[in-house]
Amino acid sequence: MDDKSQIKIFAGSSSIDFVRKICQYLNIVPGKSETFHFQEGNIYVKIQENVREKDVYFVQTIGIDANDSFVELLFWIDAFKRSSANSVTVIIPYFSYAKADKKDEPRVSIRARVCADCIEAAGADRVIMIDLHSPQIQGFFKKPVDNLYAYPLLCGYIKSLAIPDLVIVSPDIGFAKNARKYASYLNVPTVICDKERKDHSEKAEVIEMFGDVRNKNALIVDDFTLTCGTLIDAARVLKMKGANNVYAMVTHSLLNEKGLKELERSHITKLITTDTVSNPAVHLSKKIKIISVAPLFAEAVKIIQNKESLSSLFDHLPEDLIKSCLEI
Amino acid sequence: MDDKSQIKIFAGSSSIDFVRKICQYLNIVPGKSETFHFQEGNIYVKIQENVREKDVYFVQTIGIDANDSFVELLFWIDAFKRSSANSVTVIIPYFSYAKADKKDEPRVSIRARVCADCIEAAGADRVIMIDLHSPQIQGFFKKPVDNLYAYPLLCGYIKSLAIPDLVIVSPDIGFAKNARKYASYLNVPTVICDKERKDHSEKAEVIEMFGDVRNKNALIVDDFTLTCGTLIDAARVLKMKGANNVYAMVTHSLLNEKGLKELERSHITKLITTDTVSNPAVHLSKKIKIISVAPLFAEAVKIIQNKESLSSLFDHLPEDLIKSCLEI
Amino acid sequence: MDDKSQIKIFAGSSSIDFVRKICQYLNIVPGKSETFHFQEGNIYVKIQENVREKDVYFVQTIGIDANDSFVELLFWIDAFKRSSANSVTVIIPYFSYAKADKKDEPRVSIRARVCADCIEAAGADRVIMIDLHSPQIQGFFKKPVDNLYAYPLLCGYIKSLAIPDLVIVSPDIGFAKNARKYASYLNVPTVICDKERKDHSEKAEVIEMFGDVRNKNALIVDDFTLTCGTLIDAARVLKMKGANNVYAMVTHSLLNEKGLKELERSHITKLITTDTVSNPAVHLSKKIKIISVAPLFAEAVKIIQNKESLSSLFDHLPEDLIKSCLEI
Amino acid sequence: MDDKSQIKIFAGSSSIDFVRKICQYLNIVPGKSETFHFQEGNIYVKIQENVREKDVYFVQTIGIDANDSFVELLFWIDAFKRSSANSVTVIIPYFSYAKADKKDEPRVSIRARVCADCIEAAGADRVIMIDLHSPQIQGFFKKPVDNLYAYPLLCGYIKSLAIPDLVIVSPDIGFAKNARKYASYLNVPTVICDKERKDHSEKAEVIEMFGDVRNKNALIVDDFTLTCGTLIDAARVLKMKGANNVYAMVTHSLLNEKGLKELERSHITKLITTDTVSNPAVHLSKKIKIISVAPLFAEAVKIIQNKESLSSLFDHLPEDLIKSCLEI
Amino acid sequence: MDDKSQIKIFAGSSSIDFVRKICQYLNIVPGKSETFHFQEGNIYVKIQENVREKDVYFVQTIGIDANDSFVELLFWIDAFKRSSANSVTVIIPYFSYAKADKKDEPRVSIRARVCADCIEAAGADRVIMIDLHSPQIQGFFKKPVDNLYAYPLLCGYIKSLAIPDLVIVSPDIGFAKNARKYASYLNVPTVICDKERKDHSEKAEVIEMFGDVRNKNALIVDDFTLTCGTLIDAARVLKMKGANNVYAMVTHSLLNEKGLKELERSHITKLITTDTVSNPAVHLSKKIKIISVAPLFAEAVKIIQNKESLSSLFDHLPEDLIKSCLEI
Amino acid sequence: MDDKSQIKIFAGSSSIDFVRKICQYLNIVPGKSETFHFQEGNIYVKIQENVREKDVYFVQTIGIDANDSFVELLFWIDAFKRSSANSVTVIIPYFSYAKADKKDEPRVSIRARVCADCIEAAGADRVIMIDLHSPQIQGFFKKPVDNLYAYPLLCGYIKSLAIPDLVIVSPDIGFAKNARKYASYLNVPTVICDKERKDHSEKAEVIEMFGDVRNKNALIVDDFTLTCGTLIDAARVLKMKGANNVYAMVTHSLLNEKGLKELERSHITKLITTDTVSNPAVHLSKKIKIISVAPLFAEAVKIIQNKESLSSLFDHLPEDLIKSCLEI
Repeated sequence: MDDKSQIKIFAGSSSIDFVRKICQYLNIVPGKSETFHFQEGNIYVKIQENVREKDVYFVQTIGIDANDSFVELLFWIDAFKRSSANSVTVIIPYFSYAKADKKDEPRVSIRARVCADCIEAAGADRVIMIDLHSPQIQGFFKKPVDNLYAYPLLCGYIKSLAIPDLVIVSPDIGFAKNARKYASYLNVPTVICDKERKDHSEKAEVIEMFGDVRNKNALIVDDFTLTCGTLIDAARVLKMKGANNVYAMVTHSLLNEKGLKELERSHITKLITTDTVSNPAVHLSKKIKIISVAPLFAEAVKIIQNKESLSSLFDHLPEDLIKSCLEI
Repeated sequence: MDDKSQIKIFAGSSSIDFVRKICQYLNIVPGKSETFHFQEGNIYVKIQENVREKDVYFVQTIGIDANDSFVELLFWIDAFKRSSANSVTVIIPYFSYAKADKKDEPRVSIRARVCADCIEAAGADRVIMIDLHSPQIQGFFKKPVDNLYAYPLLCGYIKSLAIPDLVIVSPDIGFAKNARKYASYLNVPTVICDKERKDHSEKAEVIEMFGDVRNKNALIVDDFTLTCGTLIDAARVLKMKGANNVYAMVTHSLLNEKGLKELERSHITKLITTDTVSNPAVHLSKKIKIISVAPLFAEAVKIIQNKESLSSLFDHLPEDLIKSCLEI
Repeated sequence: MDDKSQIKIFAGSSSIDFVRKICQYLNIVPGKSETFHFQEGNIYVKIQENVREKDVYFVQTIGIDANDSFVELLFWIDAFKRSSANSVTVIIPYFSYAKADKKDEPRVSIRARVCADCIEAAGADRVIMIDLHSPQIQGFFKKPVDNLYAYPLLCGYIKSLAIPDLVIVSPDIGFAKNARKYASYLNVPTVICDKERKDHSEKAEVIEMFGDVRNKNALIVDDFTLTCGTLIDAARVLKMKGANNVYAMVTHSLLNEKGLKELERSHITKLITTDTVSNPAVHLSKKIKIISVAPLFAEAVKIIQNKESLSSLFDHLPEDLIKSCLEI
Repeated sequence: MDDKSQIKIFAGSSSIDFVRKICQYLNIVPGKSETFHFQEGNIYVKIQENVREKDVYFVQTIGIDANDSFVELLFWIDAFKRSSANSVTVIIPYFSYAKADKKDEPRVSIRARVCADCIEAAGADRVIMIDLHSPQIQGFFKKPVDNLYAYPLLCGYIKSLAIPDLVIVSPDIGFAKNARKYASYLNVPTVICDKERKDHSEKAEVIEMFGDVRNKNALIVDDFTLTCGTLIDAARVLKMKGANNVYAMVTHSLLNEKGLKELERSHITKLITTDTVSNPAVHLSKKIKIISVAPLFAEAVKIIQNKESLSSLFDHLPEDLIKSCLEI
Repeated sequence: MDDKSQIKIFAGSSSIDFVRKICQYLNIVPGKSETFHFQEGNIYVKIQENVREKDVYFVQTIGIDANDSFVELLFWIDAFKRSSANSVTVIIPYFSYAKADKKDEPRVSIRARVCADCIEAAGADRVIMIDLHSPQIQGFFKKPVDNLYAYPLLCGYIKSLAIPDLVIVSPDIGFAKNARKYASYLNVPTVICDKERKDHSEKAEVIEMFGDVRNKNALIVDDFTLTCGTLIDAARVLKMKGANNVYAMVTHSLLNEKGLKELERSHITKLITTDTVSNPAVHLSKKIKIISVAPLFAEAVKIIQNKESLSSLFDHLPEDLIKSCLEI
Repeated sequence: MDDKSQIKIFAGSSSIDFVRKICQYLNIVPGKSETFHFQEGNIYVKIQENVREKDVYFVQTIGIDANDSFVELLFWIDAFKRSSANSVTVIIPYFSYAKADKKDEPRVSIRARVCADCIEAAGADRVIMIDLHSPQIQGFFKKPVDNLYAYPLLCGYIKSLAIPDLVIVSPDIGFAKNARKYASYLNVPTVICDKERKDHSEKAEVIEMFGDVRNKNALIVDDFTLTCGTLIDAARVLKMKGANNVYAMVTHSLLNEKGLKELERSHITKLITTDTVSNPAVHLSKKIKIISVAPLFAEAVKIIQNKESLSSLFDHLPEDLIKSCLEI
């Protein structure tokens, strides 16, 4: 970065470790701050160093305990603006309410838009996210939203495994377009599952599978998993259809202990995921491989501060970056 | 109410019982709705009946699990507006972040203003609260905020107890003005404690006491209590200064089990409070007397729908209303 | 409608005939207005009757000459608001920029959001559309957006044709979820094509087909067609795969003369579409069957004015409505 | 300019040649971009180089095909803001809707305000125009609007012609104040015509003429002409009243072919105008002399980037600038 | 009015008498309110009766002591909105800052736009004014602005005087268009003066006069006068050019004592004006005839409450109204 | 200051002398500007030098003639923004309407919020004030509000007087918290008066006094005084209770001549105050000692321009600053 004195990176409660990794990559010290959770549930935030005219990057993932993280985020933005920061860029590695992006039933809220309005009302100047659930969410914001992609990093790791006879499997039709991006990057075929989500309780059912998986090693790809349910169901069908090993790869993983146990018992050999959600449980399972995207966000910060183009980052990911993501 | 068909009252997760009481008082049926808490922490809301062109009153206290209640509130407002309600009046019996109304340290957020902005951005047309922590909070909103008062109900109850030689005690200087309102209503003297809050951890210390309490029965009054700490400290000093029985009376009570135990062990004979916070723990203590303010909010709704003056309600509280508050 | 005196329906330049049909169905007279296109390209609008405190419904499709229609729409909204209309509901049967709902390349505009912001800045109170290209577009608006569905009417017509051995064909993966809605309504199987759009020049290529069409009659369904290119390509593949007759059905049809000629020459037996776009060319082809959705919008207006639920309309479409759509 | 690396100048579809001239004057390369007009009429825009933290100047005249140009302008502004430009200054050499600046009849739109609101909603930070139809239009914007003046350039050209016995003629009372500015600059008398515009169809009628034109050479001045109708009518009356040669000079010329033919047949010897409207037709007539104002806008850009005062530019126009305007 | 119970008319400090006349015409009682001016200059306002869901009309002229009146107006709007009025229509008989509608010099404020923004920010729903200085000011507001016209009333009075050989005189070119409206209504010729305002100190100088006044009775018309300077100057020139009697007629009169003395000494026989400005001084001169426009505003209120067309009022002013304006 | 060329400090009509002192301290020249008060009461403002991309500090106290000062302030902000200033920081040494911060009666305006909204609507980027009447007023603004404190300067002066046996007296309970801050700084005891304000006419009555003053020198502290009434009343009681000398110290003094006379006649030995209000009357009394806070604001400007922390200023006030405040 050309001028490190102009920048300050702060962590919200849910992303302290993530910010540590970003700052380690950029070789700077995280901003000092204090958060206090009162007994009855409300939150107090305080910036503990001067941010006047600084470009502030504030990182808060909205995953587990989504509402606490979200409200804390709003307070931080307000605190930075009232402390005369020059700009406040909000980094949200996982944005839980991105899934709530439409009025698919009568008389429901479009919760992702409500969140976008609050973030802008609080005073954010820019937002950075990764692998957004639907691209239209950028349009819920008036302020610039930069959307990063994890697939080059994830596919880079897959390449390093040199799995023979690989096919990419999309667990449903909605993700097929993205799955093809993975397949094209890895130069392997795509297989598409066709399931239907019955209600909002997240239960779903695999219906059909388009493409051949017999004697192939299958890699199911998706943007997020809550319970591993979809992945495990797909893995069972893949096995039934003659697949060899079944891998799964998702950007955002919110697995709880129950999910972990089911993953252990499942046909899935390995679940590759990232650290966008601060989920201590995932370290408990040997089936899970975590690749950090913190260096990717760090690069994004560097590019923005250097006034360079973010989109060109993905044309040629620096080797160092890929290495950092695996090692940090 | 002149026309009940025009109105719908809905409950958020934290105020289901409170809405039941409001509707019982008004003799109408609560609006049908569904709330779903996903495993990872985010919330889904759905209105289950037509609200087109209705005047919607939505009740959600923001007390225990404040952030969940607050975010849910925003989603409900959005859902009502997108469902073409004519107006959305938000009733917030307890508003946890009202205390966070100033920048009393460098580089903190004015959280009550952040909340006000979000509530207005989501689309609320009016807000009703009771015994606001500071009157300036009305000015954080552009939309009308009606602030109700519990003291006539609470004092009505005290009168019915016919306690001899009563003095009203303000636990600190900040509440002295309000304490005098209670004293004037009950026509008894006021005594003022002078404590200082040392930091935001809510610990405080009684310093001095202005006024005579020897052989008097003391009633400490305050707007809210989290741990009963301030009340118990004041009670101890009152006893030291020769007071007979010590009562305490607060509008909003967020006592947890630890607080309840300390209350049981304390010099306080009885704690009189209301049901603004949905706190199942308070029923566990025999020292606690709860007076419902739901009928008061119900009267406010009736007055608003009848296009009458809300301020005149407090000139002469109807006898029926007072009775309902004690019995409902 | 309970009270016709409260309502006024006006037509923009691009929807004069559509409004005539709506008003015929509702048995009211369209609002009087004047539009003038100056030689150099700018537009003048004038309301020619009193609209003070009326509920105005203004209809303007944004299809052919999209920008003229869009800018005219903004001027009309402003004129109604400055003339003290009580509310302005904008009916946009086809919204051309709905397709531009994401930043799928670096440094492009999210044009649908820009349009939504302008419509709201001009003062619209509500928007009604039909078969929106993506459901997230409702979230680009803060004001209520009611999205109607044409499939019950279109499927009703298909049922009346009693085509044997019918399969529904989705021309690409993106529309598969919707196609299944048609199939489920008609109780027939679904076949999914998997094409990829290469660039924004609207050329695409069919890649694969999931499902069996041999000796079946195929009905390709989609939300809109500009050139019939996708439909004709799919029809050719369907024929190659052994399909009998191939029908196509789209809600919005913007076919120009070149498209019409290609349709005539193609494997498509019949194109069923609606009148959301005012396209005089479509009457030139015998292969095209038009079903009016004006009565559906008229019903929506009636429901809104009667303060009833719009979502329940689709549970049981009135018989009269279906008949009107075929005959008007 | 002190720092050319900080600035980027982009052209909209209607001002490509104008931007070429601005950039030639400033010796910089125009920004790379792509515009695509779809068959059905909608528009796609894409910035083709990095603009992060740049000061963007976007030029789009809104003249012929006004609505296409205006909507494209909105999309560009959005694209620049979402691409994190530091500021977006919109240069509108001719703003067609400036004439629509009042509610001179009941129930019409104030279209210039609608346009201003949309331009600001899309995110513009500043606007630069020239010879605005009415000065109040600056007040329709909250953002700074810099209004340039063409008369020093135009009068400079007139001076170089050394026309003897010259009088300046205002074609109506509304322009008299401006006409006197021209006359004062050239140090010649003013004559005022007094016509009345009967309706919005732009037909008007000369009524009277205040001042003597016998044996004088007359120069009619106005801000814009659509059909030359007003100018030709005035010229006829001037001839009747004994004027020698009649010249006309307008800043904005939107003449179509019919107007050009009538100009050729008229009493007007020469029409002096500028290149604010991209009108290829004007080159067809030998009676038309075009003076470029692109160098004037280029100077304005330079002054703004150098943080100097724009108003002082008109105190002493640089000689080089005047020369460039005649030669570019 | 169909329903008087729905409406409340309140007076600001500067329009107490004006509101008395409006209410007398409408046969209703003015709203009760209290205004208090503190010694140091700030203002306190209090509504003294229930306005919940009422349509409030608040009248405050902004003339003498313009800033006190303007700030008081903002506080009243806020008070009405916070008291849950259904709508707040602001009637501003004279709006002092309307003259400040453009940036006619570098680095000045467009004060009329600032005022418009503040009035809208405070919460006004509609504005009614009369004889606005420039029609573009309506475009400074987003909310509807109804502009009334005094000329039919004023000309009605002139007709009743039956002055022979009358000519209408416009004191400058800027008012010529309006002067012709008066002349056309009275069916007499127009004469136009051509003066130039030299600076913002309001001094001006008559230069020329277009039209014949010899042996005619002249009626100078204008929208407002501060010092009578322009009118007196024009009267002197008219006398020099052979005019008989010279009358003057302006809608808004802000004459101070010095102006009154100069009027007394001048060639002006009579100054006809209205009561839009609360100016006790004007009653001191016998040369001044005041015609009330309060009944005109009262009619406007009636029309708005009856949801009728305001523009049609001026097609045929009711006889009663004209009579009231002369007698009230 | 690191870079003085980037900054411009301008004075409004009410703070010309105050700005002279600020600029003297910073060793820069005040910005050139012109203000004109028209006879009828409205105000014209003009910036007389280039401010393009400058950081403008505009100083206007809102004390005597509060409304004139406030409206002028809005026009200045607009003028600076339309002149392309980079930022506009508004310094309001005394903000008269800060006292109007709540709805303490039914149907009044929250005037401080109205003012805050207007200041932000006009375009201010930051506000600096001193000793705000209530800290919640910062929350009425969305933009950063920096609140300075006068007590270190004032107490510094008191220290230099070396008054023996000093007690700090709070004139009412509301100011007790602040009074203790003074006492703690001077390391002396606090005495609290307990009065009640009966209505908004500013009359109040001392009721009781907590603490011992016999044979002590008393220093009454408050934030502002209009008439000295409260201070004189308290002084009388202090004398009755046996106090020796009685001093008074307030930040903001709006004393008129009547107040000055009463001060002269009163028990108060000396009134120490600052120059936040431009009050020429205060120089007439020998009992008044004025300490300038202009250097404090100058330091704040310097800190802001140097991007340093403002809160740390009060940890160790520079010696030079204290000296300047006494001497300037």
